[in-house]
Amino acid sequence: MNKIAILPMNVPKSHPRYASLMQREKLIEGVKKNITAIAGLIAHGRGEAFDYLIGERTTENAKKAIRAAVARMQSSKTVLSVNGNVAVLCPEEYVKLAHLLRAPLEINLFYYRPERINAIRNALLEAGAEEDEILVSNKEYLDIESNRKQANPEGIAKAETVLVPLEDGDRTEALKRAGKFVITIDLNPMSRTARFADITIVDNVIRAVPLMVEYAKERQEEAPFDNKENLREAMQIMKQNLEREPDVTSHPAPS
Amino acid sequence: MNKIAILPMNVPKSHPRYASLMQREKLIEGVKKNITAIAGLIAHGRGEAFDYLIGERTTENAKKAIRAAVARMQSSKTVLSVNGNVAVLCPEEYVKLAHLLRAPLEINLFYYRPERINAIRNALLEAGAEEDEILVSNKEYLDIESNRKQANPEGIAKAETVLVPLEDGDRTEALKRAGKFVITIDLNPMSRTARFADITIVDNVIRAVPLMVEYAKERQEEAPFDNKENLREAMQIMKQNLEREPDVTSHPAPS
Repeated sequence: MNKIAILPMNVPKSHPRYASLMQREKLIEGVKKNITAIAGLIAHGRGEAFDYLIGERTTENAKKAIRAAVARMQSSKTVLSVNGNVAVLCPEEYVKLAHLLRAPLEINLFYYRPERINAIRNALLEAGAEEDEILVSNKEYLDIESNRKQANPEGIAKAETVLVPLEDGDRTEALKRAGKFVITIDLNPMSRTARFADITIVDNVIRAVPLMVEYAKERQEEAPFDNKENLREAMQIMKQNLEREPDVTSHPAPS
Repeated sequence: MNKIAILPMNVPKSHPRYASLMQREKLIEGVKKNITAIAGLIAHGRGEAFDYLIGERTTENAKKAIRAAVARMQSSKTVLSVNGNVAVLCPEEYVKLAHLLRAPLEINLFYYRPERINAIRNALLEAGAEEDEILVSNKEYLDIESNRKQANPEGIAKAETVLVPLEDGDRTEALKRAGKFVITIDLNPMSRTARFADITIVDNVIRAVPLMVEYAKERQEEAPFDNKENLREAMQIMKQNLEREPDVTSHPAPS
């Protein structure tokens, strides 16, 4: 295989999307370190588009979902699922959340390779996790065909609640069939994951996970949560943002 | 550098996004062959999200823009700009379009490396282009800082009209400042490229380029074209699609 087509990155600071481009560089670095799957970059791009539509900020609507999610995780047996994008985008905060919730981290990959498991394990250790807090999905458990069918008997297989940030729809549906309470972080309010989860946080993991950490420092009250209404509100916000006139002087979109 | 984190791809045919996943595989293959830049995968992901919002089909609105674009290209000195994503997603159709318009192809890369130029040249040759139809941007021309400032003195520098599919905003703005008539294919109607171009085809290149080929087989009439109105219509369609209820039985979104 050839070396991959990256470069000495040459983006000038004057570029209007400098911050966003630097975030991309983090993911591309993740690919080089075996942490991010290449397909994870495509997923990130989809997220960027929906993030732009939501206004690149954590909405009140998302905050409500985050609060409900933390309350649920505090009061039930929870496992935090880990994939390549989370491990490269916000590993420290994710590990902090696991500590506050006393919940194990479970590495579960769509594009499974032993080197990737090791690279992600190392990223979590560097981010402050202990060896015995990290599980790996290692046994067939879900009724799906993809590599994500695995779960750890001491982790997800036994959990009541699973946090699956940036998840594929097949696995989310299967986790529901397996009786789990599913919490997800997904910028696309129309995705199967968003629609099948019990609580969908429509936000960028980079903003949502630190806020989860803040909320998890205190005991959150459990309250009824209507995810369908939550998704409807998120779509409403995106719709309003699409009503803006195409204005060449406005904040530029990813291009 | 480590080998990149791809897989023996193991997506079952039953996966509801099988077709879309296969398209991604094409791009990932493109990375391995040096044709696609890694950042091009993120761009593709953004496109997927907007494509979903537009309904993954060529709208009447896009057809109108395609017709206007072909008319303009038939009646002015035109160059077709080539980047990595186009070279991997629809090389045959793009070369066919160049033949029908008797317009040169000019390779212009954001992530410039000689190996990439060669790989893209080979992809174009395989797709039916002749050696002397392929130019490479090789001389500083535009007033921007990125690698895309280059143009070929016999190609883009001399052209009246430039087709830039999947373009970054900086280059589009600079091409406008250089007095070019800019036609783009961009699924994000809010991007700087979409807003600065003279004609923006809000469609997936995979669908738009074959249709351009069809239209280019006959002489198209030039007619006035209001790009601002065109973009407003595209945003309106996306807005309507966001009004759909989140329905778990509907066509699943990329997830």
